[in-house]
Amino acid sequence: DIITAMQRFFIAGPLAGRKVLVTSGPTHEPIDPVRYIANRSSGAQGVAIAGALRDLGAEVVFVTGPAAVPPPHGVQVVQVETAAQMLFAVEAAPKVDAAVFAAAVADWRVDNSSAHKMKKDGSGKAPALAFSENPDILKTVSGWGDKRPKLVVGFAAETDDVVANATAKRTRKGCDWIVANDVSPETGIMGGTENAVTLVTETGTEAWPRMSKSETARKLAVRIAKALA
Amino acid sequence: DIITAMQRFFIAGPLAGRKVLVTSGPTHEPIDPVRYIANRSSGAQGVAIAGALRDLGAEVVFVTGPAAVPPPHGVQVVQVETAAQMLFAVEAAPKVDAAVFAAAVADWRVDNSSAHKMKKDGSGKAPALAFSENPDILKTVSGWGDKRPKLVVGFAAETDDVVANATAKRTRKGCDWIVANDVSPETGIMGGTENAVTLVTETGTEAWPRMSKSETARKLAVRIAKALA
Repeated sequence: DIITAMQRFFIAGPLAGRKVLVTSGPTHEPIDPVRYIANRSSGAQGVAIAGALRDLGAEVVFVTGPAAVPPPHGVQVVQVETAAQMLFAVEAAPKVDAAVFAAAVADWRVDNSSAHKMKKDGSGKAPALAFSENPDILKTVSGWGDKRPKLVVGFAAETDDVVANATAKRTRKGCDWIVANDVSPETGIMGGTENAVTLVTETGTEAWPRMSKSETARKLAVRIAKALA
Repeated sequence: DIITAMQRFFIAGPLAGRKVLVTSGPTHEPIDPVRYIANRSSGAQGVAIAGALRDLGAEVVFVTGPAAVPPPHGVQVVQVETAAQMLFAVEAAPKVDAAVFAAAVADWRVDNSSAHKMKKDGSGKAPALAFSENPDILKTVSGWGDKRPKLVVGFAAETDDVVANATAKRTRKGCDWIVANDVSPETGIMGGTENAVTLVTETGTEAWPRMSKSETARKLAVRIAKALA
């Protein structure tokens, strides 16, 4: 760790002087004081990406939901719980050169969440939950004017038609790249140590072989460094 | 650890020869392959209770949801995810002398959970989730005939009128004791290291002082040993 710190200090990486924002982990959307809606993101891929960007010399702002994997060292950590808090943290961050939205943000939040624990009333009927759509962080940042990062990278976690859905998502969100992966339970990717992604850019799609999440992160960080060079 | 194991081997505790079942942790109820409904139980109190019962010589069957705290050593661990799986595991366990239901079981499950990731359709409207009530494990076991444990202990996690609600719950479920606690966020109990419980029995209520979850567990295990003596 001292060696790594010294290397970073003495050998300027390709991202030295660059600021990059990374979001990571799941969000939790409260139903009442004890219940919430969650997703199976462990935060492992986001943590690996933030670490890989740091290793190339970037100054990293790391906005993370309640993840199972702890944040990397040497980055600025902002911890949030909900999608609304994540957007707030992203908006509050300084202008960055690139932003990687690896968090699995909940699409919806519970509109009528309760300050008291909801109880069964004996009727056998569940309390009706009303949902509203959460802010779309990727689309919001992609649409920024002066403050828009030069490179905006989104993630697409799909279970069907991965590449077609990711390609459509890139256009719809207005971001530069989409890192698409298949999170079907049988792939073992969500919560696992490996990933198999397809990178969708303005010039086409590239299927990367299955490799560890750290290798995926290093490959992506190198691509980001090239794009910013 | 070797010392503890030897003590247990050579000094028969007051629960030697007794079988106790403990449920612990949250349950997760799937919405689709990546999303689920969860609750803030860390499993810490259930793990401590199982460990304390084991220390008094009991043979412990430990049925746990996806908890943050790892199961104790020296107990038989059954890992489940949903409330329905937890009931199944409880029904499949051998006859026990006492059962402690410390798990924070979801009251409802999603009826129309999807095998594919639910996506925003652009309408701004969330997919309608339909819920059904989960099986009531505490009430089910309390109502067992020959297989009913001599002592059935439930938990009540309340945010309002803790003792009144817990006393009513004891009658409604047909269990012997209720361990009631206040899980309002300002208490820091849910997910924390301390607990402040009220024990509701057939003879009345006893407010225990705030203490660590391990001390709460030891005190409860000693009470269980006395009740089974």
